[in-house]
Amino acid sequence: MPKNKKVNAAILIIGNEILSGRTKDTNTSSIALWLNSIGVKVNEVRVIADIENTIVETVNHLRKANDYVFTTGGIGPTHDDITAESISKAFNLKYEIHKEAFKILEAYYKVGEFNEGRQKMVWMPKNANLILNPTSGAPGFSIENVFCLPGVPSILKSMLGGLKDKIVGGDPILSHTISLKTVESEIANSLTKVQDDNKDVEIGSYPFFQAGKLGVSIVIRSEDKFKIDSCSSQILNFVKEKKIEVVDR
Amino acid sequence: MPKNKKVNAAILIIGNEILSGRTKDTNTSSIALWLNSIGVKVNEVRVIADIENTIVETVNHLRKANDYVFTTGGIGPTHDDITAESISKAFNLKYEIHKEAFKILEAYYKVGEFNEGRQKMVWMPKNANLILNPTSGAPGFSIENVFCLPGVPSILKSMLGGLKDKIVGGDPILSHTISLKTVESEIANSLTKVQDDNKDVEIGSYPFFQAGKLGVSIVIRSEDKFKIDSCSSQILNFVKEKKIEVVDR
Repeated sequence: MPKNKKVNAAILIIGNEILSGRTKDTNTSSIALWLNSIGVKVNEVRVIADIENTIVETVNHLRKANDYVFTTGGIGPTHDDITAESISKAFNLKYEIHKEAFKILEAYYKVGEFNEGRQKMVWMPKNANLILNPTSGAPGFSIENVFCLPGVPSILKSMLGGLKDKIVGGDPILSHTISLKTVESEIANSLTKVQDDNKDVEIGSYPFFQAGKLGVSIVIRSEDKFKIDSCSSQILNFVKEKKIEVVDR
Repeated sequence: MPKNKKVNAAILIIGNEILSGRTKDTNTSSIALWLNSIGVKVNEVRVIADIENTIVETVNHLRKANDYVFTTGGIGPTHDDITAESISKAFNLKYEIHKEAFKILEAYYKVGEFNEGRQKMVWMPKNANLILNPTSGAPGFSIENVFCLPGVPSILKSMLGGLKDKIVGGDPILSHTISLKTVESEIANSLTKVQDDNKDVEIGSYPFFQAGKLGVSIVIRSEDKFKIDSCSSQILNFVKEKKIEVVDR
């Protein structure tokens, strides 16, 4: 894809533990920050249950609607790990032992430790491309524009770097944050004017509490540093006029 | 809805700050844990951008596919808060000043402080039902089965209790966790057998790292305490046979 084209992605979190509320998802943030840095914007995130039909249908929808899809979860050794088999069905590919993955795990484990449970992790869609795992051996995989990563946050993070050459992004999405000691209603009108004058820049307003004090972070996002700087100046102008304090955050 | 019926919900997180990775979503977990406690199961979560068409289409899909929909975010005073107007469009309702909400905020703020920015927060779909906000005044609202809550986690949490009478759940979804000092591959086969023998119980297996040690949490979920206890016994049997240590977590 040429530079300056908008490149987008969807993230699909597969896992009952997020839907039950037991676990808070942090993988979305890790993947999104990394994607932004290589010029890919996340359009949507879905969290779905470990149910084969749901995975198949959701993957087939998202992979057509987005340049890239990143799934997390469900590629371990237990009965509730059904992502690889479901992705095989989504692409109508045979679900089979991946020889290269088998060799990697055979070498990774001590003799006798590459047991039946672990061998489940080398079953993948036919001709899957491996995503290497520097933390715990078991690789992820990709098929066309769908990249399947594990659910454990530390392992997932360690695998993102190895994906860089496989993803072609646009210009990196830059952001600048201005944090203010104020409340949203004090700046709402002025901020609307800045947004109206800069329709192709994304300006977000996020209230926060810090050490018992109210504040607002204004986040300006664009691929164009000049536009960010221009918006930033316009915001700092009304901030100065209104005698609002800028704070570190 | 009668008891013993399965009642389900979708959560819709509206906000560019989650998609950019800047903010980690914790509202899903707060809402899901609370819903489970009143017998409502979360079927899916979506995170979407602050784009009107996207909000309208997603809400209209989710409200037909689920008993309840909970949205978070986009009901504040700034230009990027477009949830109330979008929900009005989704339901084909007039977007107008809600008189009761106006009175609440007029009383909440000091004289002269109920400015134009804050007045934006009383614009809602016609005939919306208010969801009271004990933290910061500005109410959320519901229309039919769609409940719109703010994005700030502490405010959102304080509003859930007030919703209890408006949501009719089934039996509460119970869960029991057994944490083990082992790795998933050691228990995968035995756990599969327990799952096969208890198809209507949800058994999840989640690896964790704690104080540098590997472990696995097995989470058993059902509306039926007897079934949870039975699964738990079966799991503790193989755990004992394999001489695996049970740990606190």
